[in-house]
Amino acid sequence: MDFQLADRLYLRVFEEDNMMLSGELTENIVITGKEGLEELHRTSFYGRPKGDSLELSLTESAYLIYMKKITVKCAGEELDFEQFFIRASNIVKNFELFYIVYKDLRGRGYYVQPSDIGFRVYPRGGHPGKTPAQYLVFVTSERIPLLVSTLNKHLDNSDNKKKRLILAIVDEESDITHYEVKKLIPSGSSVLKPKTLHSVVTLLEDRCMVWEPDESNMLHKEGFFGKPMDEGHLQLSLVESCYLLNNGIMEIEKRNHEKLGFAEFSDIATRIESDFMIKYKVYEKLRKSGLVPKTGFKFGTHFRVYRSFDSISHSDYLVHAISHDHIFSLQQVSRAVRLANSVKKEMIYAVVSDRIDFIVLGRVRL
Amino acid sequence: MDFQLADRLYLRVFEEDNMMLSGELTENIVITGKEGLEELHRTSFYGRPKGDSLELSLTESAYLIYMKKITVKCAGEELDFEQFFIRASNIVKNFELFYIVYKDLRGRGYYVQPSDIGFRVYPRGGHPGKTPAQYLVFVTSERIPLLVSTLNKHLDNSDNKKKRLILAIVDEESDITHYEVKKLIPSGSSVLKPKTLHSVVTLLEDRCMVWEPDESNMLHKEGFFGKPMDEGHLQLSLVESCYLLNNGIMEIEKRNHEKLGFAEFSDIATRIESDFMIKYKVYEKLRKSGLVPKTGFKFGTHFRVYRSFDSISHSDYLVHAISHDHIFSLQQVSRAVRLANSVKKEMIYAVVSDRIDFIVLGRVRL
Repeated sequence: MDFQLADRLYLRVFEEDNMMLSGELTENIVITGKEGLEELHRTSFYGRPKGDSLELSLTESAYLIYMKKITVKCAGEELDFEQFFIRASNIVKNFELFYIVYKDLRGRGYYVQPSDIGFRVYPRGGHPGKTPAQYLVFVTSERIPLLVSTLNKHLDNSDNKKKRLILAIVDEESDITHYEVKKLIPSGSSVLKPKTLHSVVTLLEDRCMVWEPDESNMLHKEGFFGKPMDEGHLQLSLVESCYLLNNGIMEIEKRNHEKLGFAEFSDIATRIESDFMIKYKVYEKLRKSGLVPKTGFKFGTHFRVYRSFDSISHSDYLVHAISHDHIFSLQQVSRAVRLANSVKKEMIYAVVSDRIDFIVLGRVRL
Repeated sequence: MDFQLADRLYLRVFEEDNMMLSGELTENIVITGKEGLEELHRTSFYGRPKGDSLELSLTESAYLIYMKKITVKCAGEELDFEQFFIRASNIVKNFELFYIVYKDLRGRGYYVQPSDIGFRVYPRGGHPGKTPAQYLVFVTSERIPLLVSTLNKHLDNSDNKKKRLILAIVDEESDITHYEVKKLIPSGSSVLKPKTLHSVVTLLEDRCMVWEPDESNMLHKEGFFGKPMDEGHLQLSLVESCYLLNNGIMEIEKRNHEKLGFAEFSDIATRIESDFMIKYKVYEKLRKSGLVPKTGFKFGTHFRVYRSFDSISHSDYLVHAISHDHIFSLQQVSRAVRLANSVKKEMIYAVVSDRIDFIVLGRVRL
């Protein structure tokens, strides 16, 4: 959408009315007189009343200058849109991002108020004074790395305030993509009861092999573990093997018949995959929650996850294990979420600290 | 597919015939007598004749033991499948990967011969001695990082041999995904003639702004540059701005009205995006080839690319710029290719050295 038709119509009406209010820029705020309260706040919910005057943020002011609703002076001199915009972008880091997101939301009929992280957005039909805000919108650019801890802080904050958290990511061409961020407690219905194996499993290069046909079949059929290499031989992945070892279901030996304990096995696995331990913790947590995780390689994530293994034909989630000090590249997040949604799955990041938090990211259209 | 029905039937026939050949394992090869030539090579194209005997690779031998077509002895002692497999995997690194890929190809009716990087595969209906091999199959695991230089070497090699290069990636659950790798010279039909701007463009935080309405429209309409922020103001991305600057179409200044040359601008851009220069080189190359590159953020790549800007509704390629010393994570490649294909685009890596090579990766079903 290049620009809003509504803008153009609105502009024309205002030009005819020719009722421009004036405001004064001081530091990072524009203050209008009493008329502002009436014209801008009571009817359209711009700004915050302060006694007899109205305070407008720089974003609101730039938008209102563009809409020809106000003129702004600074030290007696009137600033045009270009001058005001450049000045504002010198004051507020990434001002243009806030402006783009604000203009888009207002242009689509939402009432918007500023917040620490971007904006508070009111539900359709609602407005300040009538309804609480519905969304907290965190504004960022595709290029700004996002710390998991930052995202968690915003999540806690929006949970406390009973708002939905939206990530508004502005790309290099100023297009906006909105993601909703939620916590989730995944759970499924798979109760797993594999019998203890009598045969010994061999660790090959980076996977294990069950050689005994009946036990191969049992593990695969009763727990959806591994993949049959052929009739009678089952290959297990490293996480699967480690889980079965740790739960006393089987023993693992090296090709030289040396037995491996949990610590030795996970050491070897970590040498093969540096993030093995966080991946393993998430695998274990998912299995213990009644879910069936299998490799998500084809989708570029650690796991695809089934809620039960009766419905094994379609997996519900894509889960990627990350550590609590992970830094998101928003380009990668964008790719992961888009891919998950294109195959009708939810994209979940499992954040591993002393506990595991599951964070769902999904595209939304506001 | 858990195992091949064909295997089972075949096995039964052989058990009835009970005509097992015997071979001898020496170093990394199994040698059978004259009967092998007749039974295994002339009818089914296993192994390589060597005088009166037949040489079988370890992969072929493991498969033939599993199929109950041969027994293998080593120093007088017969090895069963498990013993042979473990021994082979001690000799050949990642033996299990080769075995999985080989078994899959043979199981689906292809004739296969070993090669340096994996296998040579004959076209359906063809076989050694009748037709040349059609594919070179490079076998690897999702966990093994892949150097761009390795991929290029295999590409050159398969080009010289007039074969199609296939990447067979085995995931942690032993599922195989095949990708075809090709070089491409992208070209389009967009001849670009934007006029030189009279107004000056401002570099804001990480994008540029054209303030003059007519010139904003001209740039957008006549070259599909930038994105209108509203009626009259055009935002340009860093690569677009750098390209227009470098081609003398416009001048850029900072917010303090200081003019920026190409070197200064690209320095600033590199501070914002560390891979700016390789991205810029690819952008320029694509534009000069008559293509229109726009940001690929929503797809998790650097660019989406249009072959002409008459057909601007659907982009044809997703292009990601990488340096010649890049190391692919196959998990990321898998995600990128799957996403590109799900939106009916080709995934292209643009490898930047002193020249730019475009490599297409696409999933194929052999």
